[in-house]
Amino acid sequence: MITIFIIGTGNLGTQLCQAIESTNSKQIQLIGYANKSNEIVAQINAPLISNRVPDCDLTILAVPDDAIAAVSSKITTDSIVVHTSGSAPMNILESHSNHGVFYIPQTFSKNRSVDFSDVTICLESSNNNVMKQLEVLASSLSRKRKPINSHQRQQLHLAAVYMNNFVNHCYFKSSELLKNANLEAELLEPLMNETLAKAQDSGSFAAQTGPARRGDDQTIQRHLQQLKELDREMYLALSESIKNTYET
Amino acid sequence: MITIFIIGTGNLGTQLCQAIESTNSKQIQLIGYANKSNEIVAQINAPLISNRVPDCDLTILAVPDDAIAAVSSKITTDSIVVHTSGSAPMNILESHSNHGVFYIPQTFSKNRSVDFSDVTICLESSNNNVMKQLEVLASSLSRKRKPINSHQRQQLHLAAVYMNNFVNHCYFKSSELLKNANLEAELLEPLMNETLAKAQDSGSFAAQTGPARRGDDQTIQRHLQQLKELDREMYLALSESIKNTYET
Repeated sequence: MITIFIIGTGNLGTQLCQAIESTNSKQIQLIGYANKSNEIVAQINAPLISNRVPDCDLTILAVPDDAIAAVSSKITTDSIVVHTSGSAPMNILESHSNHGVFYIPQTFSKNRSVDFSDVTICLESSNNNVMKQLEVLASSLSRKRKPINSHQRQQLHLAAVYMNNFVNHCYFKSSELLKNANLEAELLEPLMNETLAKAQDSGSFAAQTGPARRGDDQTIQRHLQQLKELDREMYLALSESIKNTYET
Repeated sequence: MITIFIIGTGNLGTQLCQAIESTNSKQIQLIGYANKSNEIVAQINAPLISNRVPDCDLTILAVPDDAIAAVSSKITTDSIVVHTSGSAPMNILESHSNHGVFYIPQTFSKNRSVDFSDVTICLESSNNNVMKQLEVLASSLSRKRKPINSHQRQQLHLAAVYMNNFVNHCYFKSSELLKNANLEAELLEPLMNETLAKAQDSGSFAAQTGPARRGDDQTIQRHLQQLKELDREMYLALSESIKNTYET
């Protein structure tokens, strides 16, 4: 049985606490959590323990990247200490003899339950014993897990920025154009769904269409004239990148 | 009964022929098709008619934007003539007394059947009689249709570039980063799905997360250093646009 304490109850921390509590695995147990504001989180059954980090096998930091060093320096138990960041290096925790990273490449919100079971949990560890413990936890939460190194994790995190942050912003810019033309956002939902399905089916390289793909500069120029000045740079940068991708 | 002839059997033309042939509606009938290469298309039952545009009620041009004017000038019947372009103005067809636009905001591939039934078909017409005929056709293919003007259609087409072309290119750039780090593309499929589900559920404005949304310039700088020089402009332009969106 691995006893676990979680520090940080933002989007990820809260979902992680809930996921650990709702698993049927008898190999892991959440013994408590802490957060900056010392506030009880209704969705978590384990107790808020605010004045100290209790004895446990594994302490998970689900705090912002720039708080990892400060928070981890206050942990005086000899538990394994891991962070959950996509970009912070593992060795930021090296003052703890057993340390590692438990990175879940998914987007989390407080009010949307995310199914962890299909997400590949990416693990990094200072030694084999730590890796074994992290694998027990990961396999209780998901069918998929994978050891990766810090460089791979940083590239994965950057790839996730494109896959989530940038894709979502393109969704937003699209909806803004519709709104300004008095058209409902729902008008392009079938296109939104088909774009994803086609990329998963044919691969995004083959799935690309549109004026930049065709090198149709006339349409690109007309589109630029339709856009507000502030929006032209992003349109152009994306179009140039598409052109560069398909140049022979 | 509306008799229909389709000129152009690219991705859209082929799917349109198939959709008309497979509908149960007795109000529409495909009487034939033509294409530049005079080639029979195996998926279409109606005959290839290559030497003339036959008498019919409605001739649909599914040809590239820059071919609409030339192809339509060769039509000497008094049929309604419509194009299917997102950006060409309707009046490019004004030499035909009955003309209009039949725009389907979806992405088409030759080898992926697209379900039209959920797509809002956008209609524009030179007069009420044309609109009535286009509505009969549209309602045979889809549950949703909407009259829009040329300005709205051009904005819709531009919005579709963001929703499809730009989103797909972000997918591609993400997969490229994974590949270069020896990571499988499947690793981010759950994130890809959740990004879409979350935007549809909460709206893309509220769904935005990430370094640009937080104004986390340190992470942005680190990401820029990880990227090849050619990729920095697109990363920066998207990040700037996200920052501009959330600036108070």
